[in-house]
Parts: sequence; C-alpha cells; structure tokens
Amino acid sequence: MVANVAMRTSRVVIVGAGFGGLSAARSLAGAPFDVVLIDRYNYHLFQPLLYQVATAALSPADIASPIRTVFHRHHNVSVVLANVSAIDAGRNEVIAEGRRIPFDYLVVASGAQQAYFGHPDWARDAPGLKTIDDATYLRRRILLAFEKAENEPDPDERRRLLNFVVVGGGATGVELAGAIAELAKYALASDFRTINPRSAQIVLVEAGPRVLSQFDPSLSRYAQRALEQLGVEVRVGAAVTVCDEAGISLGGERIESRTVMWAAGVEASPAGQWLGAQTDRAGRIKVEPDLSLPGLPHIFVIGDMAFRLDGKGRPLPGVAPVAKQQGAYVAHAIAARTAGRSVPPFRYRDYGMLATIGRRRAVAEIGGFKISGFAAWLLWCFAHIYFLIGYRNRLIVMMNWAWNFVTFQRGARLITGMVGAQMKDLKQEVACSHSKREVV
Amino acid sequence: MVANVAMRTSRVVIVGAGFGGLSAARSLAGAPFDVVLIDRYNYHLFQPLLYQVATAALSPADIASPIRTVFHRHHNVSVVLANVSAIDAGRNEVIAEGRRIPFDYLVVASGAQQAYFGHPDWARDAPGLKTIDDATYLRRRILLAFEKAENEPDPDERRRLLNFVVVGGGATGVELAGAIAELAKYALASDFRTINPRSAQIVLVEAGPRVLSQFDPSLSRYAQRALEQLGVEVRVGAAVTVCDEAGISLGGERIESRTVMWAAGVEASPAGQWLGAQTDRAGRIKVEPDLSLPGLPHIFVIGDMAFRLDGKGRPLPGVAPVAKQQGAYVAHAIAARTAGRSVPPFRYRDYGMLATIGRRRAVAEIGGFKISGFAAWLLWCFAHIYFLIGYRNRLIVMMNWAWNFVTFQRGARLITGMVGAQMKDLKQEVACSHSKREVV
Repeated sequence: MVANVAMRTSRVVIVGAGFGGLSAARSLAGAPFDVVLIDRYNYHLFQPLLYQVATAALSPADIASPIRTVFHRHHNVSVVLANVSAIDAGRNEVIAEGRRIPFDYLVVASGAQQAYFGHPDWARDAPGLKTIDDATYLRRRILLAFEKAENEPDPDERRRLLNFVVVGGGATGVELAGAIAELAKYALASDFRTINPRSAQIVLVEAGPRVLSQFDPSLSRYAQRALEQLGVEVRVGAAVTVCDEAGISLGGERIESRTVMWAAGVEASPAGQWLGAQTDRAGRIKVEPDLSLPGLPHIFVIGDMAFRLDGKGRPLPGVAPVAKQQGAYVAHAIAARTAGRSVPPFRYRDYGMLATIGRRRAVAEIGGFKISGFAAWLLWCFAHIYFLIGYRNRLIVMMNWAWNFVTFQRGARLITGMVGAQMKDLKQEVACSHSKREVV
Repeated sequence: MVANVAMRTSRVVIVGAGFGGLSAARSLAGAPFDVVLIDRYNYHLFQPLLYQVATAALSPADIASPIRTVFHRHHNVSVVLANVSAIDAGRNEVIAEGRRIPFDYLVVASGAQQAYFGHPDWARDAPGLKTIDDATYLRRRILLAFEKAENEPDPDERRRLLNFVVVGGGATGVELAGAIAELAKYALASDFRTINPRSAQIVLVEAGPRVLSQFDPSLSRYAQRALEQLGVEVRVGAAVTVCDEAGISLGGERIESRTVMWAAGVEASPAGQWLGAQTDRAGRIKVEPDLSLPGLPHIFVIGDMAFRLDGKGRPLPGVAPVAKQQGAYVAHAIAARTAGRSVPPFRYRDYGMLATIGRRRAVAEIGGFKISGFAAWLLWCFAHIYFLIGYRNRLIVMMNWAWNFVTFQRGARLITGMVGAQMKDLKQEVACSHSKREVV
C-alpha cells in the first residue's frame, strides 16, 4: 500500500477557480499531488469589486488574474479552460466538453449564479452581476440609458431612462446603488446638454426589513442614511412582483425604469444535480463536517456551493472568506487523509464584514467592533487592495481609486459590445433563433 | 447679412470623433459656433495602440477617452452617440438613426474600415483591427488558440493552432506580429503544461517588396531583421490568394493557421456614396485644396476619408497626424470663411513616422533623420504617451508599460465574450440567420 502511494501521485481535480478553488489549488501547489484546476474562464475574478467595473470605475483586467500565471511556477498544478457539464461519481471522472478527467479527490467549487426566485424570465430585463461579461453589459446598459435620455423627446420615456432600480439590499446592491448615484451626480454631471444627470433617480429595493441584513441593525440604519444622502431612494420591505422591460411592480405600486439590475439572490451552480446530492432550496449541497459529500469522502464541496451551519446554527454565508478558508481546509484535509491522519471539522473564523456606500463611507463589523464612516471606508479600501491577487492589479486599482477620488471621474466609461445597427442584427438573430426553436 | 450672422450662430456638424473629428471639434470649442460631434462610439479611440489591447498588454479603457468628458467644459460642443446612415447634401442635413441633424458646415471625418480587396468573405476568417471590439475579439482568438492547443491531441491541429499569420506589413502588421511573438515567447512561456508556447510560429505576410514601405528601405531592412530575431517569419512579395478558417494560400504555397489576422488595407467609410462624391479605388473622396467638396464649399472631408496629393504628388497617408492637422485646418477655415476671410490651401507638415518592433526596438524617421533600435523605441514610447488623450490614460499606460517591461507579463490576459456552450449558441444563431437570409 505504501509502495503503491509512492508509485502514483494522487490526483486532485478542482472545479472552479473562484475564491474557494483558487485557495485549494494554492494550498496544494508544491505538495505531492497532481492538481488539475478547471474553470470556464481563463482568469480568477475578484468579484467584490465587480460593481466598480459595472459603474465604469475599473477595467475588467484590473480585478482579474490569469489563472495560469498564478500557478506558472507550480508544475504540479495544471489549468484546464473548459465548461464542466457533469461529474461521474461512480467512475471518479469529471466530464468537461467531451473530455473525461479522472480524479482521486474532487473539490467542487463552482460557485453560485444569479437566482430569480421562480422567475427566470426576469433575467432578461433585470440582469445580474456575477461575471465580467455581466459587468461590461451592465456598464453598457447604464451608460446607454443616459445617452438615450439625452436624445429622447418624450419626457415620460426620458424619466424611465433616468430611473435606475437595484433589486436587493445586500452588499452588492448597496455598493452598486451608491456607485450609480455617484456616477450620475459627479462623473456624468456636466457631460450632457439636454438632460441633467443629477436628476437621475436611483431606487434600491429590498424585500427584507433592512439593507445589509448580515450587519448589525445600527450599521444598516447608517448605510440607509448614507445612501439617502447620496440621493438613493431606499425601499425596504418591498418585494418585486412584476419585472419587465419598462420597470418593476412592488405589489400595487409601479416603478418605471429602463434599467433594472438584480442583486437579490443567488443559487448554487448545478453541481448538486450532477452529484445527485441532497441540496437546500438554493441548490447548495449539504456537506459533512469535513466538507465532504455524505458517503463520498473523497469528494469535497466548498464555497457558495456548500451548505453547512456555523456554531450558532446559521448557514455559513456565501462570501469570499468562507470559500477561501474552506479551500485551504480541504487541501489540508486531503493531504492529511493521504498520510492516514484525520482532521478536525471545518470551522469558519469570522474576521468581519465590510460594505461601502459611495466614495467616502463604509460600514464594518470586525471582531465585535462596529465602525462606520470614513475610517470604515479606508479600512474597506485597504482590505480590498490587500486581498486582490497580484501586485499589478493592486497598483492599478489603487491608482484608479486615487484618480477617481481626486477628479470624481470614471476612467472606464466605455460602451462596448454592439451598437446601433449591430444591435438590430443581434435582435434579428435572436428572434430568428427563437422562431427556429419553435419550429424544432 | 452681418446682422443675420449675429442673430444665429452657425452650426458645424462633425461626423466622427477619431483623430480628425476630435481635432476639428477641439479647435472649435469655445469659438462662436454650435458644434455637434457625432460618433457611433461614446469614446475617442487611440488607434495606434489598439494592437496592444489585442495582445493583452493594455485594457480598452487605457486607450479610449469618453468624448463627452473631453468637451464637458465646452458648452458650445454637444456630443451625439449615433450611427450616421446618410447625408442629405441638398437639405444640409445629416441623418442618424432616424434623426435629421441640420448643419451650416459639415466636417466628414468618419475614417476607414478594413478592406479585403474584393474578398469580403475573408473578414470572417481573418479579422481586422479597427475598433475596441475588434481588439478584444482578436485577443480572445489569440489566447484561445493557445488554450485549445494545450488540450489538442492531434499534432497537426496543434501546429495549426500555434501558427499565427498576420497579413499586411505596414506599421500595424509589424507591431502586431512583434507583440504576438513576445506574448508567446515571454508572457505565456511557462504557463502551459502540454505545449511550449515558445514553439509558436508567427508569419508576417506582405504583398509588396518590403515591410514598412512608407519608411526608408534601410529602416525596412532593420525592421525585418528585428522581427526575425523575435522569431517572426517575414514573407515579402507574397500575396494572399486564399484565406479560410484553416489558413492562407500564397499562390501554390499553403500556410496552415487557425489565427489569421488582417492588417493589409483599409477603405474609406461609405460617406463617399452618401455624398455622391468622386472617390478613388479605396473609397476616399477627392477634395479641393481647402479640403472641401468640389461644388459644396461648406462640406469638408478630412482624415482617412479624404484623397489629396502632397507636394510631391503622392497621396497623403491615412495616419493620425494628417487627420489631426486637417481637423485643425478646417476649424480654422470655417472660422475664416464666416468672418469673410479666405485661407491658404491645406499643407501637411510631416514631422515623421514611428513604428515599434517588440518591446525594445523601433524605427523612426524624423525630419530626414533615420533612427532605429532602443533610442527609437524610447522616442516611440514618449510620443505615444504624449499624444494620448487625458492624464489618467497617460499614467495608466506608462505604468502598464513599465510593469510589462520589468516582468515580461501582460496585465490584460482575459478571454472575454462568450465561452463554451455560449459559443455554440452563437454559431447556431449565426447559422440560423444565414439560412434566414437565404430564405428571404
């Protein structure tokens, strides 16, 4: 048995190079394992700053790190760019674009996607913010709304174009709403001739009783006030009942808007179905104390994919620190298991939470301390720079922030993708492909 | 008549915010004219550095400046984001997306697009490099070729994937080929496990007898040697006869490649047809000595759109300095004409030419002096930083170059746009829209 282990290095396949998968692969880099890291993108994305790409403050490359570069000195890690479509747990193989990739240990870290709570058709009119392409698409939608308003003779339609609705009062929704308010009030303020961008209305809609519900209620109140001072209308206890291309309804009340953005919820990627595992309502897989699958101790599930209660009986939140700690933990657990040792159950060490509201304020809850205002914002900046991957990205993001702070400008105000006539072509194509589907 | 002029400010409409249009609008900013600047993008693009976006060295936002921001302090300039579809010279109106925009003076500066010399079908297999979307698409193609090669079992197909062909030996082609060679030989060199990116073949194909034919023959020879030292195979006197998805043919000879890029020629945008004007073979409009249209002295055509001979009887080249000087000239001519004065004919002042080959070498021809090597490269860097629009872009580009120079890394190595399954959807859609066209 010992001879056997020496003869063949165990292979660890990691699905997903988000915070969890990257952390697992980094912890195994240089260790005596063959590590295969699979992702459908060629970069690791620093999702917490994605809203800054959507609001033209940063470029995609500033918050993305090529995965191959992260591991280029670690020859035991190979990176595969592919879409995983299934996991064959019987044969210990991951199936990705026709290839079968065998594993001894599997780490499923494929993250979460936008969820529309039984209304998948809302995705078209209320795009979410999970990927780089989502972010540049939202950026396009936001900037084009101002451009269209500038050319729009009908005052009602102009109003709709200058109304922006963000659904979901978690950190992403709060940060997005604040950033759009500042975009309108500062960066765009003097750039138009027939509209006044300052007159844009930003509405943040939250179904629960308060924004930032993960935080202490005092910080939620602070965040709401800070948003309101930026000109954001905050609607709590308001559930979206209708969502279409001209706005949303909150029960009987209608909010007209051409730009509705969704930051209200996520569901786990479909890996739960691939594994035939037991999931919660959000598709998260219920895992053992060591984050392995019940009955399949060589398969681990981490990050937004995993459902596990913390010490107080609450589910672990879908945030980067949880995923990163779980990634490091399973790397450790795999190494221990190979050596015949056992590991204590995973325990999340909560170092705190941060959320920013605009360019000068934030809230933070760090080890029982509650901080708000400019000090919390500085802490937020430092933490985000610190956790970014790669010195170049840190440097460029710092420079961009300094520039934005001093000039109030946004450096990445590009409408990319299709314009004008090309858009029409696309619509025709989509219409055509729809009709084709009906025919088939 | 004088009273009339005082009563109504003349309106100058400028079509296109490239080097020519931007220069005209800047020269008229603050002058007693209503200036309307129309572009189909919301940014001015610094095209000379576009190949660096295609080769992952810079982000799109680093070389693009929001047009509205350029003019936000100049209230006599309004910016319209629209696609111009026609010019009604009889009624003095520009037609853009259904709107009719009247003018007293018109400056047509809508630039050039890729030309395939009677083979428009080659555009699909040999994309060009004129827009930001072109550049991120090329970046995607180049990076994906390496990714596919890494997963490819068939050695012939792997070879095709690691062959890159650049058609056209002008500045863009030379710069692109050099940048791809360095991408393969440095930035990607240690990032793959089954392929060696250093083994990539880059072929530069030029139909004429030498690369950089605008330069002195001694500099062409230097550039060719420098390219060859970077590992680029330079084929001069080689005209492409076939171009398909698996490569190109040069007469009887076949070069297999999955990534063919087109930098071989441009044709003017279709404004010549709109105006019913006399054009040369490349669609450029023949203009009067003051750059106005024959018989329509209030309509000016500048930049890549205009055909005009220089003092030596050669057509003015389609380069940024010509467009910029022409933009400033027509602004001056319009102001003079309104004041009842006349202006001398346009004369191009040629300050010189620059082209870079990789990260340490360039050629320059400045006022009769010929410079090559590292000194020319430094000059190239300074000139490009100097001519970039906006301090933020200058700072960020400088930082990125310094970073790339020291680390050999590329900061913008992102494959964006559709991946995997989404690509298949797109292909279905395109196939579907093709079949639809056949039906209609």
